[in-house]
Amino acid sequence: MSDHPLKTLIVAADRAISNKDFDGLMRFYAEDATLVVRPGLHARGKQQIRKAFEAISAYFENGLKVRQGKMNVIESGDTALVIMETWLDTIDQNGQDLSNVRRATYVFRKTSGGGWLCTVDNSYGTDLLDEAD
Amino acid sequence: MSDHPLKTLIVAADRAISNKDFDGLMRFYAEDATLVVRPGLHARGKQQIRKAFEAISAYFENGLKVRQGKMNVIESGDTALVIMETWLDTIDQNGQDLSNVRRATYVFRKTSGGGWLCTVDNSYGTDLLDEAD
Repeated sequence: MSDHPLKTLIVAADRAISNKDFDGLMRFYAEDATLVVRPGLHARGKQQIRKAFEAISAYFENGLKVRQGKMNVIESGDTALVIMETWLDTIDQNGQDLSNVRRATYVFRKTSGGGWLCTVDNSYGTDLLDEAD
Repeated sequence: MSDHPLKTLIVAADRAISNKDFDGLMRFYAEDATLVVRPGLHARGKQQIRKAFEAISAYFENGLKVRQGKMNVIESGDTALVIMETWLDTIDQNGQDLSNVRRATYVFRKTSGGGWLCTVDNSYGTDLLDEAD
């Protein structure tokens, strides 16, 4: 799966987050995209998603780096479900490096031009059920 | 989330599987849907998906029952990502009841009539990454 165009795209989006390039980051999202900020809290549309990323970045005092691990893509027509390891590298209160891995689920929609836009960004994957009723 | 229309739909699809009503089951899928039969093996389109369910049902000697547990829906425009506990009740070689739970990921597309069709059916959820490179 290493050659799938969505891999290149997601790596570029992660670089935008790490570089605090939120204008660049928004180019990867559909206008009506939904981001799971944390379980139970959704940001809807580019404006809310941008604000959420700015707040997350500020919370980590700009020390947040995002990188991807293993990836699996399931395509169906103009829709793709992406299952992906997401590594979050941060710095803790004592200045120590801290790495967390999540298994994320993303939905992408193919545009008429053949590109892809993210419609659902759920970095929590199936762990969301830990919080569900 | 118990009132989401997708819950009713998925419960009805499970009943169709349990009843071996494969004609009825196919009404829940988009024409270009993709089913993850097992990690690395995808059925594409209604014809392949129907054959896969017939084979799965025969493998379990028609003793397969499917039911759903906790559910989480993330909507974005005409797309919904569903994260759901899927219980598979079967009978083992010694005639004993056997229950397995998976955390499934489904993608649904809203039709122009306001209904929903399944485009990606991945009952393995993020466990797919256990098999990925």
